[in-house]
Amino acid sequence: MADAAIGVFDSGIGGLTVFRALRRELPPGERLIYLGDTARVPYGTKSEETVVRYALEGARFLQKRGIKALVIACNTMSAVALPALRKEIPLPVVGVIGPGAEAACRATRRRVIGVIGTAATIRSGAYASAIACHLPDARVIGRACPLFVPLAEEGWVDNDVARATAAAYLGDLKREGIDTLVLGCTHYPLLQGVIGATMGPDVTLVDSAGATAQVVRARLEERGLLSGGPTGRDDDHFYVTDSSERFREVGSRFLDAPLARLEQIDITA
Amino acid sequence: MADAAIGVFDSGIGGLTVFRALRRELPPGERLIYLGDTARVPYGTKSEETVVRYALEGARFLQKRGIKALVIACNTMSAVALPALRKEIPLPVVGVIGPGAEAACRATRRRVIGVIGTAATIRSGAYASAIACHLPDARVIGRACPLFVPLAEEGWVDNDVARATAAAYLGDLKREGIDTLVLGCTHYPLLQGVIGATMGPDVTLVDSAGATAQVVRARLEERGLLSGGPTGRDDDHFYVTDSSERFREVGSRFLDAPLARLEQIDITA
Repeated sequence: MADAAIGVFDSGIGGLTVFRALRRELPPGERLIYLGDTARVPYGTKSEETVVRYALEGARFLQKRGIKALVIACNTMSAVALPALRKEIPLPVVGVIGPGAEAACRATRRRVIGVIGTAATIRSGAYASAIACHLPDARVIGRACPLFVPLAEEGWVDNDVARATAAAYLGDLKREGIDTLVLGCTHYPLLQGVIGATMGPDVTLVDSAGATAQVVRARLEERGLLSGGPTGRDDDHFYVTDSSERFREVGSRFLDAPLARLEQIDITA
Repeated sequence: MADAAIGVFDSGIGGLTVFRALRRELPPGERLIYLGDTARVPYGTKSEETVVRYALEGARFLQKRGIKALVIACNTMSAVALPALRKEIPLPVVGVIGPGAEAACRATRRRVIGVIGTAATIRSGAYASAIACHLPDARVIGRACPLFVPLAEEGWVDNDVARATAAAYLGDLKREGIDTLVLGCTHYPLLQGVIGATMGPDVTLVDSAGATAQVVRARLEERGLLSGGPTGRDDDHFYVTDSSERFREVGSRFLDAPLARLEQIDITA
Protein backbone atom coordinates (compact mmCIF):
# COMPACT_ATOMS: atom_id res chain seq x y z
CA MET A 1 0.00 0.00 0.00
CA ALA A 2 2.90 2.42 0.67
CA ASP A 3 3.79 2.05 -3.01
CA ALA A 4 0.36 3.22 -4.17
CA ALA A 5 -0.05 6.72 -5.60
CA ILE A 6 -1.57 9.77 -3.91
CA GLY A 7 -4.61 11.27 -5.65
CA VAL A 8 -4.78 15.06 -6.00
CA PHE A 9 -8.16 16.40 -7.10
CA ASP A 10 -9.09 19.92 -8.18
CA SER A 11 -11.89 21.46 -10.22
CA GLY A 12 -9.31 22.67 -12.74
CA ILE A 13 -5.76 23.85 -12.93
CA GLY A 14 -5.34 25.81 -9.66
CA GLY A 15 -4.70 22.66 -7.63
CA LEU A 16 -1.31 22.37 -9.32
CA THR A 17 -0.07 24.78 -6.59
CA VAL A 18 -0.87 22.05 -4.06
CA PHE A 19 0.64 19.41 -6.36
CA ARG A 20 3.86 21.42 -6.47
CA ALA A 21 3.91 21.79 -2.67
CA LEU A 22 3.41 18.02 -2.30
CA ARG A 23 6.31 17.34 -4.66
CA ARG A 24 8.52 19.56 -2.51
CA GLU A 25 7.37 18.13 0.84
CA LEU A 26 7.14 14.39 0.13
CA PRO A 27 9.92 11.84 -0.45
CA PRO A 28 10.91 11.51 -4.12
CA GLY A 29 9.49 7.98 -4.26
CA GLU A 30 5.87 9.16 -4.03
CA ARG A 31 3.76 8.92 -7.18
CA LEU A 32 1.05 11.55 -7.68
CA ILE A 33 -2.10 11.30 -9.79
CA TYR A 34 -3.75 14.63 -10.55
CA LEU A 35 -7.35 15.03 -11.67
CA GLY A 36 -8.63 18.40 -12.95
CA ASP A 37 -12.35 18.52 -13.84
CA THR A 38 -11.69 21.13 -16.51
CA ALA A 39 -14.91 20.32 -18.42
CA ARG A 40 -17.05 21.51 -15.49
CA VAL A 41 -14.81 24.13 -13.86
CA PRO A 42 -15.47 26.37 -11.93
CA TYR A 43 -17.08 24.75 -8.89
CA GLY A 44 -17.05 27.94 -6.76
CA THR A 45 -20.10 29.49 -8.43
CA LYS A 46 -22.23 26.34 -8.17
CA SER A 47 -24.56 24.98 -5.51
CA GLU A 48 -23.38 22.81 -2.65
CA GLU A 49 -25.38 19.87 -3.96
CA THR A 50 -23.74 20.00 -7.39
CA VAL A 51 -20.24 20.41 -5.92
CA VAL A 52 -20.79 17.34 -3.70
CA ARG A 53 -21.93 15.29 -6.68
CA TYR A 54 -18.91 16.31 -8.76
CA ALA A 55 -16.57 15.70 -5.80
CA LEU A 56 -17.83 12.13 -5.35
CA GLU A 57 -17.56 11.37 -9.08
CA GLY A 58 -13.96 12.58 -9.20
CA ALA A 59 -12.99 10.84 -5.97
CA ARG A 60 -14.39 7.52 -7.21
CA PHE A 61 -12.45 7.89 -10.45
CA LEU A 62 -9.21 8.31 -8.48
CA GLN A 63 -10.13 5.57 -6.00
CA LYS A 64 -10.44 3.10 -8.90
CA ARG A 65 -6.82 3.92 -9.78
CA GLY A 66 -5.76 2.38 -6.44
CA ILE A 67 -4.61 5.49 -4.55
CA LYS A 68 -3.57 5.31 -0.87
CA ALA A 69 -4.74 8.83 0.06
CA LEU A 70 -6.84 11.59 -1.48
CA VAL A 71 -5.88 15.27 -1.38
CA ILE A 72 -8.67 17.73 -2.17
CA ALA A 73 -6.65 20.57 -3.67
CA CYS A 74 -9.64 22.89 -4.07
CA ASN A 75 -11.02 25.19 -1.41
CA THR A 76 -14.61 25.03 -2.64
CA MET A 77 -14.70 21.21 -2.59
CA SER A 78 -12.88 21.13 0.76
CA ALA A 79 -15.39 23.62 2.16
CA VAL A 80 -18.58 21.86 1.14
CA ALA A 81 -17.84 18.22 0.23
CA LEU A 82 -15.35 16.91 2.81
CA PRO A 83 -17.94 15.20 5.08
CA ALA A 84 -19.52 13.42 2.09
CA LEU A 85 -16.09 12.37 0.76
CA ARG A 86 -14.95 11.04 4.16
CA LYS A 87 -18.18 9.04 4.45
CA GLU A 88 -18.01 7.51 0.96
CA ILE A 89 -14.27 7.09 0.32
CA PRO A 90 -12.50 4.61 2.66
CA LEU A 91 -9.12 6.38 2.44
CA PRO A 92 -7.38 9.21 4.28
CA VAL A 93 -8.88 12.39 2.77
CA VAL A 94 -7.04 15.69 3.33
CA GLY A 95 -8.57 19.04 2.33
CA VAL A 96 -6.95 22.48 2.20
CA ILE A 97 -9.24 24.29 4.67
CA GLY A 98 -8.08 22.63 7.92
CA PRO A 99 -4.35 23.15 7.20
CA GLY A 100 -4.97 26.72 5.96
CA ALA A 101 -7.02 27.57 9.08
CA GLU A 102 -4.28 26.21 11.36
CA ALA A 103 -1.65 28.24 9.53
CA ALA A 104 -3.81 31.37 9.98
CA CYS A 105 -4.16 30.67 13.70
CA ARG A 106 -0.37 30.44 14.00
CA ALA A 107 0.08 33.70 12.08
CA THR A 108 -2.47 35.98 13.75
CA ARG A 109 -1.44 38.34 16.54
CA ARG A 110 -4.66 40.24 17.28
CA ARG A 111 -6.96 37.33 16.39
CA VAL A 112 -8.76 39.21 13.63
CA ILE A 113 -8.54 37.07 10.51
CA GLY A 114 -9.85 37.75 7.01
CA VAL A 115 -10.75 34.97 4.58
CA ILE A 116 -11.22 35.46 0.84
CA GLY A 117 -12.51 32.75 -1.49
CA THR A 118 -15.19 31.75 -3.98
CA ALA A 119 -18.87 32.42 -3.27
CA ALA A 120 -19.39 28.76 -2.28
CA THR A 121 -16.37 28.69 0.07
CA ILE A 122 -17.37 31.89 1.88
CA ARG A 123 -21.06 30.91 2.06
CA SER A 124 -20.07 27.60 3.71
CA GLY A 125 -18.37 29.29 6.67
CA ALA A 126 -15.88 26.40 6.64
CA TYR A 127 -12.81 28.53 7.44
CA ALA A 128 -14.59 30.26 10.34
CA SER A 129 -15.55 26.86 11.82
CA ALA A 130 -12.05 25.45 11.38
CA ILE A 131 -10.44 28.55 12.92
CA ALA A 132 -12.89 28.40 15.85
CA CYS A 133 -11.58 24.91 16.74
CA HIS A 134 -8.16 26.39 17.48
CA LEU A 135 -8.95 29.98 18.48
CA PRO A 136 -12.55 30.15 19.69
CA ASP A 137 -12.29 33.88 20.39
CA ALA A 138 -10.87 34.86 16.99
CA ARG A 139 -12.96 37.15 14.82
CA VAL A 140 -13.20 35.85 11.24
CA ILE A 141 -14.41 38.06 8.40
CA GLY A 142 -15.14 36.41 5.05
CA ARG A 143 -15.39 38.03 1.60
CA ALA A 144 -16.21 36.32 -1.68
CA CYS A 145 -13.99 37.61 -4.54
CA PRO A 146 -15.44 35.98 -7.68
CA LEU A 147 -13.41 38.12 -10.10
CA PHE A 148 -10.02 37.02 -8.74
CA VAL A 149 -10.08 33.65 -10.55
CA PRO A 150 -10.79 35.03 -14.06
CA LEU A 151 -8.31 37.82 -13.35
CA ALA A 152 -5.56 35.31 -12.51
CA GLU A 153 -6.45 33.20 -15.55
CA GLU A 154 -6.29 36.29 -17.77
CA GLY A 155 -2.78 36.90 -16.40
CA TRP A 156 -3.83 40.36 -15.18
CA VAL A 157 -2.05 40.18 -11.85
CA ASP A 158 -0.51 43.66 -11.77
CA ASN A 159 -2.45 46.18 -13.85
CA ASP A 160 -5.17 48.81 -13.30
CA VAL A 161 -7.92 46.21 -13.35
CA ALA A 162 -6.18 44.02 -10.74
CA ARG A 163 -5.56 47.02 -8.48
CA ALA A 164 -9.13 48.34 -8.79
CA THR A 165 -10.56 44.87 -8.14
CA ALA A 166 -8.38 44.32 -5.07
CA ALA A 167 -9.34 47.75 -3.74
CA ALA A 168 -13.06 47.01 -4.21
CA TYR A 169 -12.94 43.57 -2.57
CA LEU A 170 -10.46 44.20 0.22
CA GLY A 171 -11.37 47.70 1.42
CA ASP A 172 -13.81 46.44 4.08
CA LEU A 173 -11.37 43.81 5.37
CA LYS A 174 -8.73 46.49 5.72
CA ARG A 175 -11.09 48.77 7.63
CA GLU A 176 -11.98 45.90 9.97
CA GLY A 177 -8.32 45.78 11.03
CA ILE A 178 -7.49 42.17 10.14
CA ASP A 179 -3.85 41.18 10.72
CA THR A 180 -3.96 37.93 8.73
CA LEU A 181 -5.60 37.14 5.40
CA VAL A 182 -6.24 33.58 4.21
CA LEU A 183 -5.96 33.20 0.41
CA GLY A 184 -8.82 30.69 0.37
CA CYS A 185 -8.68 29.69 -3.29
CA THR A 186 -5.81 28.00 -5.12
CA HIS A 187 -5.70 30.76 -7.76
CA TYR A 188 -5.22 33.63 -5.34
CA PRO A 189 -1.48 33.17 -4.67
CA LEU A 190 -0.99 34.33 -8.27
CA LEU A 191 -2.44 37.70 -7.14
CA GLN A 192 -0.34 37.78 -3.97
CA GLY A 193 1.54 40.91 -5.12
CA VAL A 194 -1.51 43.13 -5.65
CA ILE A 195 -3.35 41.69 -2.63
CA GLY A 196 -0.30 42.32 -0.42
CA ALA A 197 0.14 45.86 -1.76
CA THR A 198 -3.55 46.62 -1.09
CA MET A 199 -3.55 45.23 2.45
CA GLY A 200 -0.20 46.73 3.46
CA PRO A 201 2.79 45.24 5.28
CA ASP A 202 0.97 44.63 8.59
CA VAL A 203 -1.25 41.91 7.16
CA THR A 204 0.20 38.41 6.82
CA LEU A 205 -1.04 36.47 3.77
CA VAL A 206 -1.64 32.75 4.35
CA ASP A 207 -1.63 30.26 1.46
CA SER A 208 -2.71 26.73 2.37
CA ALA A 209 -0.70 24.74 -0.21
CA GLY A 210 2.44 24.33 1.91
CA ALA A 211 0.48 23.65 5.12
CA THR A 212 -1.63 21.04 3.32
CA ALA A 213 1.45 19.22 2.03
CA GLN A 214 2.82 19.03 5.58
CA VAL A 215 -0.44 17.53 6.85
CA VAL A 216 -0.43 14.96 4.03
CA ARG A 217 3.12 13.95 4.94
CA ALA A 218 2.24 13.61 8.66
CA ARG A 219 -0.89 11.61 7.89
CA LEU A 220 1.00 9.14 5.69
CA GLU A 221 3.84 8.89 8.20
CA GLU A 222 1.58 8.02 11.12
CA ARG A 223 0.00 5.24 9.06
CA GLY A 224 3.35 3.92 7.78
CA LEU A 225 2.31 4.78 4.24
CA LEU A 226 5.25 6.95 3.13
CA SER A 227 6.95 5.47 0.10
CA GLY A 228 10.65 4.64 0.36
CA GLY A 229 10.98 3.76 -3.33
CA PRO A 230 13.13 5.39 -6.00
CA THR A 231 11.91 8.52 -7.75
CA GLY A 232 8.20 8.47 -8.65
CA ARG A 233 8.14 11.80 -10.43
CA ASP A 234 8.41 10.21 -13.86
CA ASP A 235 5.29 8.20 -13.08
CA ASP A 236 3.15 11.23 -12.22
CA HIS A 237 -0.08 11.08 -14.13
CA PHE A 238 -2.43 13.93 -15.04
CA TYR A 239 -6.10 13.47 -15.98
CA VAL A 240 -8.39 16.22 -17.27
CA THR A 241 -12.02 16.13 -18.39
CA ASP A 242 -11.80 18.86 -21.07
CA SER A 243 -9.29 18.90 -23.90
CA SER A 244 -5.73 18.63 -22.58
CA GLU A 245 -3.96 21.22 -24.78
CA ARG A 246 -4.38 24.27 -22.59
CA PHE A 247 -3.70 22.23 -19.44
CA ARG A 248 -0.46 20.93 -20.96
CA GLU A 249 0.73 24.45 -21.69
CA VAL A 250 -0.27 26.11 -18.40
CA GLY A 251 0.57 23.02 -16.34
CA SER A 252 4.13 22.67 -17.57
CA ARG A 253 4.68 26.37 -16.85
CA PHE A 254 3.26 25.85 -13.34
CA LEU A 255 5.43 22.82 -12.61
CA ASP A 256 8.45 23.94 -14.61
CA ALA A 257 8.60 20.57 -16.38
CA PRO A 258 6.70 18.95 -19.24
CA LEU A 259 3.68 16.83 -18.27
CA ALA A 260 4.76 13.48 -19.66
CA ARG A 261 1.57 11.56 -18.93
CA LEU A 262 -1.54 13.63 -19.55
CA GLU A 263 -4.88 12.13 -20.59
CA GLN A 264 -8.39 13.39 -21.25
CA ILE A 265 -11.02 11.18 -19.61
CA ASP A 266 -14.77 11.11 -18.88
CA ILE A 267 -15.46 10.73 -15.14
CA THR A 268 -19.22 10.62 -15.59
CA ALA A 269 -19.10 7.42 -17.66
CA MET B 1 -46.97 21.00 -34.74
CA ALA B 2 -47.67 24.77 -34.67
CA ASP B 3 -48.87 24.26 -31.10
CA ALA B 4 -45.57 22.74 -29.97
CA ALA B 5 -43.18 24.81 -27.85
CA ILE B 6 -39.96 26.53 -28.95
CA GLY B 7 -36.80 25.39 -27.19
CA VAL B 8 -34.33 28.06 -26.05
CA PHE B 9 -30.94 26.72 -24.94
CA ASP B 10 -28.11 28.54 -23.20
CA SER B 11 -25.13 27.52 -21.09
CA GLY B 12 -26.57 29.49 -18.17
CA ILE B 13 -28.62 32.54 -17.47
CA GLY B 14 -27.49 34.99 -20.18
CA GLY B 15 -29.79 33.45 -22.80
CA LEU B 16 -32.72 34.99 -20.98
CA THR B 17 -31.98 38.17 -22.98
CA VAL B 18 -32.87 36.16 -26.10
CA PHE B 19 -35.86 34.62 -24.32
CA ARG B 20 -37.14 38.12 -23.54
CA ALA B 21 -36.64 39.25 -27.14
CA LEU B 22 -38.58 36.18 -28.37
CA ARG B 23 -41.45 36.96 -25.99
CA ARG B 24 -41.62 40.48 -27.45
CA GLU B 25 -41.35 39.40 -31.09
CA LEU B 26 -43.55 36.31 -31.22
CA PRO B 27 -47.36 35.99 -31.01
CA PRO B 28 -48.62 35.56 -27.43
CA GLY B 29 -49.72 31.99 -28.16
CA GLU B 30 -46.15 30.67 -28.41
CA ARG B 31 -44.90 28.50 -25.56
CA LEU B 32 -41.19 28.69 -24.70
CA ILE B 33 -39.05 26.08 -22.96
CA TYR B 34 -35.75 27.39 -21.63
CA LEU B 35 -32.79 25.20 -20.73
CA GLY B 36 -29.79 26.65 -18.85
CA ASP B 37 -26.90 24.24 -18.26
CA THR B 38 -25.97 26.03 -15.03
CA ALA B 39 -24.12 23.01 -13.59
CA ARG B 40 -21.49 23.21 -16.36
CA VAL B 41 -21.48 26.93 -17.19
CA PRO B 42 -19.42 28.64 -18.63
CA TYR B 43 -18.93 27.07 -22.07
CA GLY B 44 -16.81 29.92 -23.45
CA THR B 45 -13.60 28.83 -21.73
CA LYS B 46 -13.89 25.19 -22.82
CA SER B 47 -12.71 23.29 -25.89
CA GLU B 48 -14.76 23.01 -29.05
CA GLU B 49 -15.13 19.27 -28.56
CA THR B 50 -16.60 19.65 -25.06
CA VAL B 51 -18.95 22.46 -26.14
CA VAL B 52 -20.26 20.30 -29.02
CA ARG B 53 -20.89 17.38 -26.63
CA TYR B 54 -22.76 19.60 -24.16
CA ALA B 55 -24.74 21.22 -26.99
CA LEU B 56 -25.94 17.86 -28.31
CA GLU B 57 -26.91 16.66 -24.82
CA GLY B 58 -28.97 19.78 -24.16
CA ALA B 59 -30.55 19.78 -27.61
CA ARG B 60 -31.63 16.14 -27.23
CA PHE B 61 -33.16 16.92 -23.84
CA LEU B 62 -35.26 19.68 -25.42
CA GLN B 63 -36.07 17.58 -28.50
CA LYS B 64 -37.60 14.91 -26.22
CA ARG B 65 -39.97 17.58 -24.92
CA GLY B 66 -41.49 17.83 -28.40
CA ILE B 67 -40.31 21.27 -29.50
CA LYS B 68 -40.96 22.59 -33.03
CA ALA B 69 -37.77 24.71 -33.26
CA LEU B 70 -34.54 25.14 -31.34
CA VAL B 71 -32.99 28.54 -30.57
CA ILE B 72 -29.33 28.47 -29.49
CA ALA B 73 -29.27 31.55 -27.27
CA CYS B 74 -25.53 31.34 -26.60
CA ASN B 75 -22.80 32.78 -28.79
CA THR B 76 -20.21 30.15 -27.90
CA MET B 77 -22.52 27.25 -28.79
CA SER B 78 -23.73 29.03 -31.93
CA ALA B 79 -20.11 29.65 -32.95
CA VAL B 80 -18.80 26.10 -32.58
CA ALA B 81 -21.72 23.65 -32.41
CA LEU B 82 -24.26 24.76 -35.03
CA PRO B 83 -23.13 22.36 -37.80
CA ALA B 84 -23.24 19.40 -35.40
CA LEU B 85 -26.66 20.45 -34.08
CA ARG B 86 -28.12 20.89 -37.59
CA LYS B 87 -26.83 17.45 -38.54
CA GLU B 88 -28.18 15.67 -35.45
CA ILE B 89 -31.41 17.52 -34.64
CA PRO B 90 -34.16 17.27 -37.30
CA LEU B 91 -35.71 20.65 -36.46
CA PRO B 92 -35.16 24.27 -37.51
CA VAL B 93 -32.14 25.39 -35.46
CA VAL B 94 -31.46 29.14 -35.16
CA GLY B 95 -28.27 30.49 -33.58
CA VAL B 96 -27.40 34.05 -32.59
CA ILE B 97 -24.29 34.52 -34.77
CA GLY B 98 -25.97 34.71 -38.19
CA PRO B 99 -28.61 37.26 -37.11
CA GLY B 100 -26.00 39.29 -35.19
CA ALA B 101 -23.64 39.33 -38.18
CA GLU B 102 -26.44 40.50 -40.48
CA ALA B 103 -27.36 43.28 -38.08
CA ALA B 104 -23.71 44.38 -38.00
CA CYS B 105 -23.58 44.43 -41.81
CA ARG B 106 -26.66 46.68 -41.87
CA ALA B 107 -25.13 49.01 -39.25
CA THR B 108 -21.59 49.50 -40.57
CA ARG B 109 -20.72 52.52 -42.72
CA ARG B 110 -16.96 52.11 -43.25
CA ARG B 111 -17.05 48.27 -43.20
CA VAL B 112 -14.69 47.98 -40.24
CA ILE B 113 -16.45 45.83 -37.65
CA GLY B 114 -15.26 44.78 -34.19
CA VAL B 115 -16.49 41.60 -32.50
CA ILE B 116 -16.11 40.86 -28.79
CA GLY B 117 -16.95 37.51 -27.20
CA THR B 118 -15.68 34.56 -25.20
CA ALA B 119 -12.34 32.92 -26.02
CA ALA B 120 -14.14 30.07 -27.82
CA THR B 121 -16.33 32.40 -29.89
CA ILE B 122 -13.44 34.58 -31.03
CA ARG B 123 -11.15 31.58 -31.71
CA SER B 124 -13.86 30.06 -33.94
CA GLY B 125 -13.91 33.05 -36.32
CA ALA B 126 -17.65 32.41 -36.74
CA TYR B 127 -18.65 36.08 -36.83
CA ALA B 128 -15.98 36.91 -39.42
CA SER B 129 -17.22 34.07 -41.66
CA ALA B 130 -20.86 35.10 -41.27
CA ILE B 131 -20.07 38.75 -41.98
CA ALA B 132 -18.02 37.76 -45.07
CA CYS B 133 -21.15 36.13 -46.56
CA HIS B 134 -22.84 39.54 -46.72
CA LEU B 135 -19.91 41.96 -46.98
CA PRO B 136 -16.91 40.10 -48.37
CA ASP B 137 -14.74 43.23 -48.26
CA ALA B 138 -15.49 44.11 -44.63
CA ARG B 139 -12.60 44.07 -42.18
CA VAL B 140 -13.50 42.18 -38.98
CA ILE B 141 -11.40 42.47 -35.83
CA GLY B 142 -12.12 40.05 -32.97
CA ARG B 143 -11.18 40.38 -29.30
CA ALA B 144 -11.86 37.86 -26.53
CA CYS B 145 -13.01 39.58 -23.30
CA PRO B 146 -13.14 36.78 -20.71
CA LEU B 147 -13.57 39.13 -17.73
CA PHE B 148 -16.79 40.71 -19.02
CA VAL B 149 -18.99 37.75 -18.00
CA PRO B 150 -17.85 37.56 -14.35
CA LEU B 151 -17.99 41.38 -14.24
CA ALA B 152 -21.63 41.38 -15.39
CA GLU B 153 -22.49 38.57 -12.96
CA GLU B 154 -20.87 40.51 -10.10
CA GLY B 155 -23.10 43.46 -11.04
CA TRP B 156 -20.04 45.68 -11.55
CA VAL B 157 -21.29 47.37 -14.70
CA ASP B 158 -20.32 50.96 -13.93
CA ASN B 159 -17.40 51.19 -11.49
CA ASP B 160 -13.60 51.61 -11.67
CA VAL B 161 -13.08 47.92 -12.40
CA ALA B 162 -15.59 47.92 -15.27
CA ARG B 163 -14.04 51.06 -16.78
CA ALA B 164 -10.45 49.78 -16.47
CA THR B 165 -11.45 46.40 -17.95
CA ALA B 166 -13.27 48.02 -20.88
CA ALA B 167 -10.27 50.29 -21.53
CA ALA B 168 -7.87 47.31 -21.51
CA TYR B 169 -9.97 45.15 -23.85
CA LEU B 170 -11.30 47.79 -26.22
CA GLY B 171 -8.31 50.10 -26.70
CA ASP B 172 -6.99 48.21 -29.74
CA LEU B 173 -10.42 48.03 -31.40
CA LYS B 174 -10.79 51.78 -30.95
CA ARG B 175 -7.37 52.43 -32.50
CA GLU B 176 -8.32 50.21 -35.46
CA GLY B 177 -11.14 52.63 -36.24
CA ILE B 178 -14.12 50.26 -36.10
CA ASP B 179 -17.51 51.89 -36.59
CA THR B 180 -19.61 48.94 -35.37
CA LEU B 181 -19.07 46.61 -32.42
CA VAL B 182 -20.88 43.27 -32.09
CA LEU B 183 -21.63 42.34 -28.45
CA GLY B 184 -20.96 38.67 -29.18
CA CYS B 185 -21.97 37.21 -25.82
CA THR B 186 -25.40 37.33 -24.18
CA HIS B 187 -23.97 38.90 -21.01
CA TYR B 188 -22.39 41.89 -22.71
CA PRO B 189 -25.53 44.01 -23.17
CA LEU B 190 -25.46 44.40 -19.37
CA LEU B 191 -22.16 46.28 -19.85
CA GLN B 192 -23.51 48.34 -22.76
CA GLY B 193 -23.09 51.60 -20.82
CA VAL B 194 -19.40 51.27 -20.07
CA ILE B 195 -18.62 49.70 -23.46
CA GLY B 196 -20.43 52.55 -25.24
CA ALA B 197 -18.66 55.19 -23.14
CA THR B 198 -15.27 53.62 -23.90
CA MET B 199 -15.87 53.34 -27.65
CA GLY B 200 -17.47 56.76 -28.04
CA PRO B 201 -20.58 57.90 -29.92
CA ASP B 202 -19.28 57.02 -33.41
CA VAL B 203 -19.36 53.28 -32.77
CA THR B 204 -22.70 51.47 -33.10
CA LEU B 205 -23.18 48.60 -30.64
CA VAL B 206 -24.98 45.55 -32.04
CA ASP B 207 -26.75 43.07 -29.79
CA SER B 208 -28.03 39.94 -31.50
CA ALA B 209 -31.03 39.14 -29.26
CA GLY B 210 -33.57 41.23 -31.17
CA ALA B 211 -32.22 40.21 -34.61
CA THR B 212 -32.34 36.53 -33.57
CA ALA B 213 -35.98 36.80 -32.47
CA GLN B 214 -36.89 38.29 -35.86
CA VAL B 215 -35.18 35.39 -37.68
CA VAL B 216 -37.02 32.86 -35.49
CA ARG B 217 -40.35 34.51 -36.33
CA ALA B 218 -39.58 34.52 -40.07
CA ARG B 219 -38.44 30.88 -40.02
CA LEU B 220 -41.64 29.73 -38.25
CA GLU B 221 -43.81 31.86 -40.53
CA GLU B 222 -42.36 30.43 -43.73
CA ARG B 223 -43.03 26.90 -42.45
CA GLY B 224 -46.55 27.71 -41.22
CA LEU B 225 -45.48 26.95 -37.68
CA LEU B 226 -46.50 30.18 -35.91
CA SER B 227 -48.98 29.48 -33.14
CA GLY B 228 -52.36 31.19 -33.29
CA GLY B 229 -53.44 29.94 -29.86
CA PRO B 230 -54.31 31.95 -26.75
CA THR B 231 -51.54 33.15 -24.45
CA GLY B 232 -48.75 30.62 -23.90
CA ARG B 233 -46.76 32.70 -21.43
CA ASP B 234 -48.23 30.93 -18.40
CA ASP B 235 -46.99 27.64 -19.83
CA ASP B 236 -43.37 28.79 -20.20
CA HIS B 237 -41.09 26.23 -18.62
CA PHE B 238 -37.55 26.71 -17.31
CA TYR B 239 -35.07 23.88 -16.77
CA VAL B 240 -31.66 24.24 -15.11
CA THR B 241 -28.98 21.66 -14.30
CA ASP B 242 -27.66 23.27 -11.09
CA SER B 243 -29.80 24.25 -8.12
CA SER B 244 -32.64 26.56 -9.19
CA GLU B 245 -32.59 29.13 -6.36
CA ARG B 246 -30.19 31.65 -7.87
CA PHE B 247 -31.75 31.21 -11.32
CA ARG B 248 -35.19 31.92 -9.87
CA GLU B 249 -33.99 35.14 -8.31
CA VAL B 250 -31.92 36.48 -11.22
CA GLY B 251 -34.34 35.13 -13.85
CA SER B 252 -37.42 36.82 -12.44
CA ARG B 253 -35.49 40.10 -12.28
CA PHE B 254 -34.43 39.58 -15.93
CA LEU B 255 -37.97 38.82 -17.14
CA ASP B 256 -39.78 41.11 -14.73
CA ALA B 257 -42.12 38.29 -13.71
CA PRO B 258 -41.88 35.27 -11.41
CA LEU B 259 -40.77 32.01 -13.05
CA ALA B 260 -43.79 29.85 -12.35
CA ARG B 261 -42.44 26.58 -13.72
CA LEU B 262 -38.77 26.07 -12.91
CA GLU B 263 -37.19 22.64 -12.48
CA GLN B 264 -33.73 21.27 -11.83
CA ILE B 265 -32.93 18.31 -14.10
CA ASP B 266 -30.01 16.08 -15.13
CA ILE B 267 -29.43 16.17 -18.90
CA THR B 268 -26.59 13.63 -18.78
CA ALA B 269 -28.85 10.87 -17.43
